[in-house]
Amino acid sequence: MLVEDFVVTPWEVKGDVDYNKLIKQFGTQPLTDELLARVKKHTGELHPYLKRKIFFSHRDLDWILNEYEKGNKFYLYTGRGPSEKVHLGHLTVWMFTKWLQEKFDVELWFQMTDDEKFLFKPDLNVEDTNSMAYENALDIIALGFNPKKTFIFSDIDYAKTMYKEALKVAKKLTFSTVKATFGFKEETNVGQIFFTSMQSVPCFLPSVLKKKNIPCLIPLAIDQDAHFRISRDIMPKLGYYKPAILHQRFLPALTGSGKMSASEGITIYTTDTPEEVKKKINKYAFSGGRDTIEEHRKAGGNPDIDVSYQWLTFFEEDDSRLKRIYEDYKSGKLLTGELKQMLIEKVNAFLKEHQAKREQARKQLDKFILKD
Amino acid sequence: MLVEDFVVTPWEVKGDVDYNKLIKQFGTQPLTDELLARVKKHTGELHPYLKRKIFFSHRDLDWILNEYEKGNKFYLYTGRGPSEKVHLGHLTVWMFTKWLQEKFDVELWFQMTDDEKFLFKPDLNVEDTNSMAYENALDIIALGFNPKKTFIFSDIDYAKTMYKEALKVAKKLTFSTVKATFGFKEETNVGQIFFTSMQSVPCFLPSVLKKKNIPCLIPLAIDQDAHFRISRDIMPKLGYYKPAILHQRFLPALTGSGKMSASEGITIYTTDTPEEVKKKINKYAFSGGRDTIEEHRKAGGNPDIDVSYQWLTFFEEDDSRLKRIYEDYKSGKLLTGELKQMLIEKVNAFLKEHQAKREQARKQLDKFILKD
Repeated sequence: MLVEDFVVTPWEVKGDVDYNKLIKQFGTQPLTDELLARVKKHTGELHPYLKRKIFFSHRDLDWILNEYEKGNKFYLYTGRGPSEKVHLGHLTVWMFTKWLQEKFDVELWFQMTDDEKFLFKPDLNVEDTNSMAYENALDIIALGFNPKKTFIFSDIDYAKTMYKEALKVAKKLTFSTVKATFGFKEETNVGQIFFTSMQSVPCFLPSVLKKKNIPCLIPLAIDQDAHFRISRDIMPKLGYYKPAILHQRFLPALTGSGKMSASEGITIYTTDTPEEVKKKINKYAFSGGRDTIEEHRKAGGNPDIDVSYQWLTFFEEDDSRLKRIYEDYKSGKLLTGELKQMLIEKVNAFLKEHQAKREQARKQLDKFILKD
Repeated sequence: MLVEDFVVTPWEVKGDVDYNKLIKQFGTQPLTDELLARVKKHTGELHPYLKRKIFFSHRDLDWILNEYEKGNKFYLYTGRGPSEKVHLGHLTVWMFTKWLQEKFDVELWFQMTDDEKFLFKPDLNVEDTNSMAYENALDIIALGFNPKKTFIFSDIDYAKTMYKEALKVAKKLTFSTVKATFGFKEETNVGQIFFTSMQSVPCFLPSVLKKKNIPCLIPLAIDQDAHFRISRDIMPKLGYYKPAILHQRFLPALTGSGKMSASEGITIYTTDTPEEVKKKINKYAFSGGRDTIEEHRKAGGNPDIDVSYQWLTFFEEDDSRLKRIYEDYKSGKLLTGELKQMLIEKVNAFLKEHQAKREQARKQLDKFILKD
């Protein structure tokens, strides 16, 4: 999906993403203040990611609220293409998802697409991606999801249920459609061509298992939208609701362009040590500051392009503190080194707690994992 | 796969099949007398289908015998795309497979491709094809396979094991390859494109489960060969042996052209009553006889195009009786009506026994079915 000088597909994000252009390109709806006010009626407060428009776009969230207000509860569906380590970009979507679960008291169906990862990564074998799924699940559990209402499953290990339902999607989906949606070619492998069928299954799986039609809301980073444009086309043909979607902006790469992704080089993993975090941020975080301290003090920095500030919009919950940082950096009162130090402390405090919970999660794994 | 005026693909057989041309077209080897003599060394006798070259072609049967003679036993793999009823054409391959199991004392892995049937038949749903798999399994069990060495599985119900292995095949297989092999188009559904990966899995599944490389021999009607040309290309890339294949001619359609197939109209099912069998053969079996009895007595009939005679080559085990029928029909001594009567008796005697065993098979189903 090429929009001028940036690229956003489920497998590649490149360039400076213009999110307003993406809304037009993908045909989604902006998250309006009106709609947020309706959310707030039910949640009491708004999550910072909503107030800050980090979640910025949606499909059919208004319908989800209509149904909810009629007493027809939705469930949440999100997922993960497992890799060796989880980075902070992934966590942010799930932190928000956890808030949604808590505020609306709903189920979460969490898909581990270990099949996808195997099919799209030439060097990985299926046993690797499958075991990564369980290692990555620790990061999800660590965020505090409700074990009674959270179902994590690997496509491979839950294939007895998944494959049968994926066939129903696949039968409605032609090569020309997936080619147009994902840019597939003649030399694309047949697993990649089939895969989006598996990704569509959780859009209706709880409806199959519970034998009633249940609305589905998918919080995701916007690069995954393409899969669900397909799902939204096919679900009504199978007799189910179209899934609703909430789109998140990417946590920017430390180096300042595109989303933070392991394949792009410098990322922060959930298992990084405080020293690693410090080094990475100090060395790589793209700065909106001036070339010299004198110049910075005089003319001020630019928080809108400064990655450390952008990261604080994801990790600093206190609105007034964030506002002060923005203003101080812009005025030149706050130097880049000081801003980076604030981020380092924030991330390390977050990771200290996360890493402890992540280790405790090993014992809870069984409570969360769905198996055939 | 168009060879002059006949078509042979896994989903379509049309026209008068020239089996010698198929050998050249598909690049297989004819079953030579020399090779049959090697088989006989191990089996004591030759199955009528070998003597009569009903199984007429192979890939690597010589290698299978080499390995067997070194003490490296093979296993058998064959399968079925389930449909409402099994017809006699299907049974003949399995009757021969049963003989191979008995004579070589080997395992049979029997795949029910209920996923394939669903993907290729617009009107069937997945629950239908899945339940047909178990109904069809009764016909297989009725043939007397060894319950200790026979493993019947549905792709859908055994998907937890199958899907994971199919991914490995799929990753090595491009759209352009399946397009060239099966004639797929842009509008082919993505399940059909993926499916041959599932069909390849039993070529190495026992090797995965037993953690050693085991030779695989596949007896099949030659229309299924295309799938295994793909398997033979990919298995070495996954570290497994290429599967060997034994190709059967089709039991001709009663009406005398192509293979007997439910989609082509008149077939005899394993559940037909004696009256139905009698009616179908009398009404539809294409005759090689003359227009009048006088002419037939004088000039003789043509058993080589007479479907009743061709069917007797599949169902009459007694070589000398078959030879006499051939000669008597050719000389005009045997009339078409009499020949049809012989076939009716033969088929009805066979079905009487088969139907009784088929009912008993319901109780044995559990002993044969592999489930995840």
